[in-house]
Amino acid sequence: MVQFVSPQNLVDLLAQTGIEQFMAALADYMTEDFCRWEEFDKAPRLASHSDVGVIELMPASDGRLYGCKYVNGHPGNPLLGLQTVGAFGVLADVVTGYPLMLSEMTIATALRTAVTSALAARHLARQDSAVMALIGAGAQSEFQTLAFATLLGIRRLQVFDIDPDSVAKFRSNMARHGVDIDIRTCASAQEAVLGADIITTITADKRNATVLSANMVGAGVHLNAVGGDCPGKTELQAEILDRADVFVEYPPQTRIEGEIQSKPADFPVTELWRVIAGQIQGRRSASQVTLFDSVGFGIEDFSVLRLIHDRIRNTPFFTEIDLIVAPSDPRNLFGMLTPPQDAARPGAAR
Amino acid sequence: MVQFVSPQNLVDLLAQTGIEQFMAALADYMTEDFCRWEEFDKAPRLASHSDVGVIELMPASDGRLYGCKYVNGHPGNPLLGLQTVGAFGVLADVVTGYPLMLSEMTIATALRTAVTSALAARHLARQDSAVMALIGAGAQSEFQTLAFATLLGIRRLQVFDIDPDSVAKFRSNMARHGVDIDIRTCASAQEAVLGADIITTITADKRNATVLSANMVGAGVHLNAVGGDCPGKTELQAEILDRADVFVEYPPQTRIEGEIQSKPADFPVTELWRVIAGQIQGRRSASQVTLFDSVGFGIEDFSVLRLIHDRIRNTPFFTEIDLIVAPSDPRNLFGMLTPPQDAARPGAAR
Repeated sequence: MVQFVSPQNLVDLLAQTGIEQFMAALADYMTEDFCRWEEFDKAPRLASHSDVGVIELMPASDGRLYGCKYVNGHPGNPLLGLQTVGAFGVLADVVTGYPLMLSEMTIATALRTAVTSALAARHLARQDSAVMALIGAGAQSEFQTLAFATLLGIRRLQVFDIDPDSVAKFRSNMARHGVDIDIRTCASAQEAVLGADIITTITADKRNATVLSANMVGAGVHLNAVGGDCPGKTELQAEILDRADVFVEYPPQTRIEGEIQSKPADFPVTELWRVIAGQIQGRRSASQVTLFDSVGFGIEDFSVLRLIHDRIRNTPFFTEIDLIVAPSDPRNLFGMLTPPQDAARPGAAR
Repeated sequence: MVQFVSPQNLVDLLAQTGIEQFMAALADYMTEDFCRWEEFDKAPRLASHSDVGVIELMPASDGRLYGCKYVNGHPGNPLLGLQTVGAFGVLADVVTGYPLMLSEMTIATALRTAVTSALAARHLARQDSAVMALIGAGAQSEFQTLAFATLLGIRRLQVFDIDPDSVAKFRSNMARHGVDIDIRTCASAQEAVLGADIITTITADKRNATVLSANMVGAGVHLNAVGGDCPGKTELQAEILDRADVFVEYPPQTRIEGEIQSKPADFPVTELWRVIAGQIQGRRSASQVTLFDSVGFGIEDFSVLRLIHDRIRNTPFFTEIDLIVAPSDPRNLFGMLTPPQDAARPGAAR
């Protein structure tokens, strides 16, 4: 039997744990996995594109556990009442190849994306960062806000979205959840970035849009570019990339999907894991512009699956499902399909 | 909600449908999908290898539906009481990216592997083929036998396995199921291939073994090589490949995983789908040696997922599971995690 964590199970686990506490634990798991990056069997995610979106598979294995996420990205889905991003995942035992846990990962993806951003900013933003601009108040906005409040101590948020309803939704959620941040609604992206130490962009258009132009990015700012995450979908004016030091998760994947997709294959980037592992210094000066070109990578999904798997132990927050057939004799799969001996068809035995 | 087909659900569906009837329907679905091969978004499966086995992802999409199988291959598993191959899969809607059905695929893989072999043999074996040698009486053996009996009319089977218990298991299953085939147990592979029109090899060692040498393969024989299916795992003496015309599913994958892995990258092969679609003649003479170098491909899994999805409609052979979170407002994922308004923490609203 395989452990099954439904969306409601994860909601209940998070309610018991606390979202901020879960994020802090996830930051620890992710740091641990980033520090042993080279041990992982990894590959760019396997994407199947259509006119309206993409379905992706994101595997990663540390040689002991294997994780894989199924995730879609369909910017037109909200018009159908569906989410832009939906996901589920599996954690398996490498020694047997058998799945251990099947889990919802829509919420888990939102959590790990936000925690990855905050973890990157811990090493790349100025130590005294207190103000964050948030451009885009969609499904990921609250998660980014909580992660930066919890893991970085951000105290003021300047939010802008072209849709005022999204901002209202964001503010209402933050008020209901309760978060010790001063949230200011801005009338434009230009207004939102004024005085910001960190600029987070999380818009969802599946096209090359310019939500941030070079003249909006001052010295010393850390850019957390989350929304550009597949071919033909970027958020930043290309000039910004020339001014910033760019940090990425997995170069072969980010060169296809990230903000740097417009740049040549030898455009200089630094692997985030080397910074987190202490091999390379992140921010080197107070005036440096740093950019985390976030697209999401399988090892982050692995980390969150591993945390969920550890945290559901001895809780009621999972059920069991029968996913892999278990014949009493493993060589006798067909025996599952044959009637008991005394029910055999007459004349068949030979 | 996503339709969930457990192993027992599929067993029940097969009991109602009849295994042979299901195989015949699957041959139709597979023929249909092979005939529109070029419409599919396809890729070599994504494999994660370890010392003891492999975990693979096998996606395929026709632009309307997307299928993906998770499957392991662990030759040492039977010693742990587990199966060498276990699998499950998902069928999704390309337009929304949302999964429609999650299904067991261990049994489904056995069915589609056998039906692919029989479909290939229909076009590659001599029309008058009546005798098949079966080398290897493991988990796949009964499925191959039924597929060849149903789809080709094979009337005599000459079976050999190094393990007499496997042969006893095979014979017992065939007797219990009831199949109109004369089954003869052989003392060696050499004896099994005597007079055979078709030779099926399905051994499971994860190494380069020689279960069939060139001097055992007579003129006019069709070889159905199923067991060699990953790097370092082959069954045939390399000389056989030089004497045979080789047919494969998807050359980029088979050149890595199949019997032809030892051959140079330009070793001549014919794509099976072109033969099934009538673009290329399969067998051209009675003396030709043909070889189907079977490794399994995502489109075959797509076909069987599609058939299961069609066949469970209006039956009790599935349940529903909550796999993808469904917030009432799709932009408001975080709303799932916040307590109702009146339960908000005191002092938090702002």
